[in-house]
Amino acid sequence: MTVKNYVYLFEEGSQKMVNLLGGKGAGLSEMKKIGLEVPPGFTISTEACGDFLKTGTFPEGMLDQTLVALQKIEEQAGKKFGDIKNPLLVSVRSGAPVSMPGMMDTILNVGLNDETASTLGTLTANPRFAWDSYRRLLQMYGNVVLGIKKEEFEHEMDSAKTGKGYRSDTDLTAEDLQTLVVKFKEVYTRNGKSFPANPRDQLIGAMEAVFRSWNSDRAKAYREINGIPGTMGTAVNVVSMIFGNMGSDSATGVAFTRDPNTGEHRLFAEYLVNAQGEDVVSGARTPKSIDDMRTELPAAYNALVDAVEKLEKHYRDMMDIEFTVEKGKLYMLQTRIGKRTARAAIRIVVDLSSEGIITREDAVLRITPETLTVTMYPQVKKSQAIKSLGKGLAASPGAAVGSLVFSSQRAIELSKEKKPLILVRPETTADDVRGMAVSKGFLTQKGGMTSHAAVVARAMGKPAVVGAEIISVDPIKGTLTIGDRSFREGDILTVDGTSGEFYEGEIPLEESVATEETGTLLSWADKFRKLGVRANANTPEEAVLARKNGAQGIGLARTERMFLGTERIKIVRKMIMSESPEERKAQLELLRPLQTQDFVEFFRTMEGFPVIIRLLDPPLHEFLPDREEVISLINDLERKEASGSELQEGEKAKLTDLRSLLTAVRNMAEFNPMLGFRGCRVGIVYPEIYEMQVRAIIDAAVKVKNEGKEIYPEIMIPLIGHENELKIIRERLEPVAKDAMGQTEVKYEFGTMIEIPRACLVADRIAKYADFFSFGTNDLTQMTFGYSRDDAEGKFLASYLEHGVLQADPFASVDAEGVGQLMLMAVERGRNSRPGMSIGICGEQGGDPYTIKFCHSIGLDYVSASPFRIPVARLSAAQAALEQKGEFVLVNS
Amino acid sequence: MTVKNYVYLFEEGSQKMVNLLGGKGAGLSEMKKIGLEVPPGFTISTEACGDFLKTGTFPEGMLDQTLVALQKIEEQAGKKFGDIKNPLLVSVRSGAPVSMPGMMDTILNVGLNDETASTLGTLTANPRFAWDSYRRLLQMYGNVVLGIKKEEFEHEMDSAKTGKGYRSDTDLTAEDLQTLVVKFKEVYTRNGKSFPANPRDQLIGAMEAVFRSWNSDRAKAYREINGIPGTMGTAVNVVSMIFGNMGSDSATGVAFTRDPNTGEHRLFAEYLVNAQGEDVVSGARTPKSIDDMRTELPAAYNALVDAVEKLEKHYRDMMDIEFTVEKGKLYMLQTRIGKRTARAAIRIVVDLSSEGIITREDAVLRITPETLTVTMYPQVKKSQAIKSLGKGLAASPGAAVGSLVFSSQRAIELSKEKKPLILVRPETTADDVRGMAVSKGFLTQKGGMTSHAAVVARAMGKPAVVGAEIISVDPIKGTLTIGDRSFREGDILTVDGTSGEFYEGEIPLEESVATEETGTLLSWADKFRKLGVRANANTPEEAVLARKNGAQGIGLARTERMFLGTERIKIVRKMIMSESPEERKAQLELLRPLQTQDFVEFFRTMEGFPVIIRLLDPPLHEFLPDREEVISLINDLERKEASGSELQEGEKAKLTDLRSLLTAVRNMAEFNPMLGFRGCRVGIVYPEIYEMQVRAIIDAAVKVKNEGKEIYPEIMIPLIGHENELKIIRERLEPVAKDAMGQTEVKYEFGTMIEIPRACLVADRIAKYADFFSFGTNDLTQMTFGYSRDDAEGKFLASYLEHGVLQADPFASVDAEGVGQLMLMAVERGRNSRPGMSIGICGEQGGDPYTIKFCHSIGLDYVSASPFRIPVARLSAAQAALEQKGEFVLVNS
Repeated sequence: MTVKNYVYLFEEGSQKMVNLLGGKGAGLSEMKKIGLEVPPGFTISTEACGDFLKTGTFPEGMLDQTLVALQKIEEQAGKKFGDIKNPLLVSVRSGAPVSMPGMMDTILNVGLNDETASTLGTLTANPRFAWDSYRRLLQMYGNVVLGIKKEEFEHEMDSAKTGKGYRSDTDLTAEDLQTLVVKFKEVYTRNGKSFPANPRDQLIGAMEAVFRSWNSDRAKAYREINGIPGTMGTAVNVVSMIFGNMGSDSATGVAFTRDPNTGEHRLFAEYLVNAQGEDVVSGARTPKSIDDMRTELPAAYNALVDAVEKLEKHYRDMMDIEFTVEKGKLYMLQTRIGKRTARAAIRIVVDLSSEGIITREDAVLRITPETLTVTMYPQVKKSQAIKSLGKGLAASPGAAVGSLVFSSQRAIELSKEKKPLILVRPETTADDVRGMAVSKGFLTQKGGMTSHAAVVARAMGKPAVVGAEIISVDPIKGTLTIGDRSFREGDILTVDGTSGEFYEGEIPLEESVATEETGTLLSWADKFRKLGVRANANTPEEAVLARKNGAQGIGLARTERMFLGTERIKIVRKMIMSESPEERKAQLELLRPLQTQDFVEFFRTMEGFPVIIRLLDPPLHEFLPDREEVISLINDLERKEASGSELQEGEKAKLTDLRSLLTAVRNMAEFNPMLGFRGCRVGIVYPEIYEMQVRAIIDAAVKVKNEGKEIYPEIMIPLIGHENELKIIRERLEPVAKDAMGQTEVKYEFGTMIEIPRACLVADRIAKYADFFSFGTNDLTQMTFGYSRDDAEGKFLASYLEHGVLQADPFASVDAEGVGQLMLMAVERGRNSRPGMSIGICGEQGGDPYTIKFCHSIGLDYVSASPFRIPVARLSAAQAALEQKGEFVLVNS
Repeated sequence: MTVKNYVYLFEEGSQKMVNLLGGKGAGLSEMKKIGLEVPPGFTISTEACGDFLKTGTFPEGMLDQTLVALQKIEEQAGKKFGDIKNPLLVSVRSGAPVSMPGMMDTILNVGLNDETASTLGTLTANPRFAWDSYRRLLQMYGNVVLGIKKEEFEHEMDSAKTGKGYRSDTDLTAEDLQTLVVKFKEVYTRNGKSFPANPRDQLIGAMEAVFRSWNSDRAKAYREINGIPGTMGTAVNVVSMIFGNMGSDSATGVAFTRDPNTGEHRLFAEYLVNAQGEDVVSGARTPKSIDDMRTELPAAYNALVDAVEKLEKHYRDMMDIEFTVEKGKLYMLQTRIGKRTARAAIRIVVDLSSEGIITREDAVLRITPETLTVTMYPQVKKSQAIKSLGKGLAASPGAAVGSLVFSSQRAIELSKEKKPLILVRPETTADDVRGMAVSKGFLTQKGGMTSHAAVVARAMGKPAVVGAEIISVDPIKGTLTIGDRSFREGDILTVDGTSGEFYEGEIPLEESVATEETGTLLSWADKFRKLGVRANANTPEEAVLARKNGAQGIGLARTERMFLGTERIKIVRKMIMSESPEERKAQLELLRPLQTQDFVEFFRTMEGFPVIIRLLDPPLHEFLPDREEVISLINDLERKEASGSELQEGEKAKLTDLRSLLTAVRNMAEFNPMLGFRGCRVGIVYPEIYEMQVRAIIDAAVKVKNEGKEIYPEIMIPLIGHENELKIIRERLEPVAKDAMGQTEVKYEFGTMIEIPRACLVADRIAKYADFFSFGTNDLTQMTFGYSRDDAEGKFLASYLEHGVLQADPFASVDAEGVGQLMLMAVERGRNSRPGMSIGICGEQGGDPYTIKFCHSIGLDYVSASPFRIPVARLSAAQAALEQKGEFVLVNS
């Protein structure tokens, strides 16, 4: 059996070998390769780690190879490991293929013992530094390799300081530290261990410890949370120690090749003269601006500037660098792709592309949709110190701070004082829309990702946390209770709709930062994408925003929102409670001019673009008040009566009205409203409703057309499951449209939502009567899975994700495996029957990156998303097209 | 252009030409063909009718062909049309391919005028008969051909009688009738018309009128109701008049070749000497028993007996015959397949088969499932005089009479008096089951075909009308209101669950008549069918009935019924409201011995057969009381408090309990419970429930096996939509089952309901963890269509059927076009992944004939239906198999 090669000198490795050498080792090798100065060293591969962890011993040949490599770096460094005259010291550092910051162990100064420490003091003319280094080795080795508790060493350190009346570690002198070394050795003895004076034994122990640290509890937990496979293993890097604390010609520092906060193209770096890495990290001394290095250490500075430029060109990205200057010479200790803010990420890719370092395709592919989203909403500034009060569903992204208010009416009153408000409700209803309009954010106890609060919040672009079951809201008493804590009107709360968390008091926010570069990036994305991007917009205001964000039309305008508002809801309720078509028609006639006006504004805003208007969809009883609320009002009056007080005339009349309202509410109640009397079913049974809507649409179109504007109305019938539904409705509505046109010819289309499983199965038949299809993936997912989204999100979806029943929330991203089959079927059958027909997707998932890629792959014409999601949709659509081309590899973002 | 042939002499036609000649014409031709004596005559085809109706004139050649045919029958009859000496008279009769009794016109005695009438009087030595015949022709012709109102003729008739002081038409003498003929001609004149004395003109007018009558309003309405295409048209039969009233050697009568009430094999006939057909029909004279004819008209009798035998052998069915004897000679005037009662239908096919006239396959094919159903339940004896109070959904077949009762508790009290009861409720709940058990039938105001009342009624085999929205039930006041009528406890009502109607008072019922022949027929069916037939049974009693009705196992035993009952529901509610798994387990441990006992009885009953037990399926909140009910109880107490009365200690405690119950009810409420937290979702989140159930099943199996009985438990997990659900549940439950077995090895299987669209799409993946599939078509239909059945049936399904959106109720019979695609997909993918896996269907549609045929066609292994539907399922399964063989043609039933 041949022995495997486990050990690679830096000059033997490269970035491509990252899986074998880990991130740190590969980076050092790559830097060596491109001619940068790195300390002599080598890497023991992740493969060795895997073999070690299987057997508990170093695999065959590894130790020999290590010793051979050690000899090579001794030669390069001109020092010898364990040599009393000129000792080589090394660091033994972990380094996995994927960054796991702070999760695994590292041991510095390996090679020190009583003799070499003394030599080091002499050679550096700094005995304090030498004994301090030795003390550190003893401490790290004892803890990491031999498992002695950290506290025991710290206790000795404290005793040493207290005995001398010192305040700080730095007060300890070389002599104090030498004494401490003795004390530390006593700690070893007390624990039945001993410190190996032999450097080789130190090295072996350190290597074993680094390997073992791959399976420490914290490393395992980190991998689990971040989805990193446990089979990967860590490499071990053995690197000659370079000292930045060898005097005023030595220094240490960190650098980013560009500003990681803004993305600006400038060297973003800090350094400390006569210092070691941990001095920078610990914050004990304030680092200097890199500009000072130019004069203070000019040669090293120039070498750094050269290195930075070389690294960026080579890695084609902004890099994060650690460096040390030892006696005027610059050494690169680490490099990796630099972390950056979302805003910087966008600027960097745009600049890199403008500078010719990456292509525009690369730029577009490198920005994740999440990164883009973050730049578009205010965000809570994350800090470990802040603890949230609780977590609900992250229903609408962004964050807001405001004072609590428990009713919409009260919100409207308080808004006059210009106070920022957070509206807290058990759940919201149509009655809350005005209150929501004057509030900054929302928190509800109940409801899911498609609850009223969630949908309205997303449409308004305001943060919302919904279904926070941990809280208890009593809107009558005006209290929000969490456990034994209680909040009242005026208390300050911060709501984070991006994470679903909410906080007591004001948490600092980072404002949204849509920049010029974002616009540039999206304009590039638009060139690459094949999918059209439309917006879901229910009001003219939303349509304006949609255009601003780049929408190429409206994919879904829900007309039911136009049935709301104080005046309209009164008419609508009368219409619903009508007992004859004539009565119903009379009420609808009152609504018609209002609807027409809505559409006029819509069409004006969307001049030149198609506008899909969906006819009334929800069950009519949604426009009636809540049953328990009515009962409660009745009971209040009845209780008053029972207590002997005479009811006033007005109260008596109200009681009568309430009782007949209750009868109507009861009669219209449904067992499963989502699957009940709604959508085209209402349209078939009460033809006058859709007739009014179509007349209003065409009247508006005629008016706007006569103003000289081009408009393309598309009328969409919801909830079609059988072709006859569409056939009948279309046959009824076409004459209405023709009649409304009069002299003005308006081009318009009739189409349907595909949101019922059966519609996909018979899409060929439905396509005979539909000019276009638009997937309603929310309902389609609900019916295909048999999940009521609002119920699932409150009752079992979390548990399903936790138990691994589902890998992802099927309402957030399309379930390609199940729902996707139906969608593909609908596309194929629909186009088979009506070649080239326009097919899109509207609703929540239309703005989801994974879903957008899926839609691209099945050949949809466009996606439609909420106005705030348009930029993300444009980016995702471009990525879908580019990834399909297969020419570009996503490096990082 | 060649002229088409429109006219067929009886000797030129046959039964096979029924579409061209109509039923009457084809029957006459066929009789002629097999050598029976029919009057000379011919048929003008339905094709001529179609052409006539298109243009308004006889098609080219038709009249000439008619006159040629007329000449032929003149020769055969030895008489001449219009001849004064020996006139031929004809009847001009309609006759469509499909029977439309009384819907179209017929004119008799064509050929009479002043001269021929006089001759006829002389020739028959009966001038009164001749003038009466002439008077009738004038009347019929005037009305049918010329559109003169019937009343004008009747008025003249009345005047004639009043003038003479007569009471009855028969008092009119020959002279009176001759005078009336003059008066009738004056009626023509008053209407600006004249009666054509020329027989040929009469014939032409009569033929046109018969053609036109195809499109009369009443004929159109009849066709619409019965689904007969309007393109079919009617034939016209021109038949020489045969007179049964030519003296004591003449007669007329009707016959069935077997008893149409019982099916007994005997000549079932009546006749009248010296009479015409309408004398038999009008009931003016009482017909004689056919036995008298044997002596009175022996030659004609023998000819009739021969004809009957010949016809049965030829048509291979029981026939309905009209005959006339003219001067001792028998003429057959019509034959068709005879209508019969359901009971007779079954006896006839079994007898015909035993007699070797038809095969057993024919016998099985000829009985429709509806016919079989009717024999199994008591039925309301239909009578035109009876008007129902109203109609609801026909939820469970059969009929019952009883006195009204408005609460289950009261029903239990009254049942001690052995009174038959009809339980009337707004809707029923689990609390009503005991009251239902002591009642004969049910009527509810709300709910659909799967409402509690409907499901329980079908399981009990008792009639139920549900969702009768016309009624208003106040259970507290104890009133049932329909419009301005009101009924109270003790009032008698008849409920017809077959039609959905309900009646005031006692309507006579026909009892169920499952006979020996039914058993014979079903035993034949069992030989032919490929599908297994299992039963849905929730109690040991139902299982007993299922075996009695021929079930080969249990396809669905719902365990949730076992959670009900006064004692159990208390435990179940505590279980549901548990706040920890431990608490929940403690309550489940109380239920376990009860469940085990249920299963023990089940297994004993179903010894030797497989039993599929479905683990808990409904949402847990179904076991909690209704929200409004709880609120109402709370309000009662609160009102009492408000009125100043001090609450008693017990009442205070109750109020506290009620309030916490209300909180639980509110917290568990769902927006769309059908798509909510139920089925395997509950099983995943609260594993202890299914664990208890599986332990109870295996404990019971072990016990029964140790009694020496073979049993095959199959455990079915409901509502699987993703393979991981089944994987996780199976992995959890298998160790439980193994543990429960101990030393006794029990063979059992794990399978799943296929009732979610997604399950069909990923059936290949699910089949990896499922030993068997069983389609739950009710839920599958709900989700595929997006219909909540209870809501659809109350709100829009009727309207959808009326508007022709749907051709049939998709919950009654499988929607082959949509849902069927998913089922086929599930079968193919499931068996692809697990070859030969057992796949069945349970639930409502499992007992529906159309669905059974569909299930046969997609290769299912068995259907499972309610115990009462088992016979129908056996029959339908056999028909599915036989029809697929394609060797048998369904003639009639």
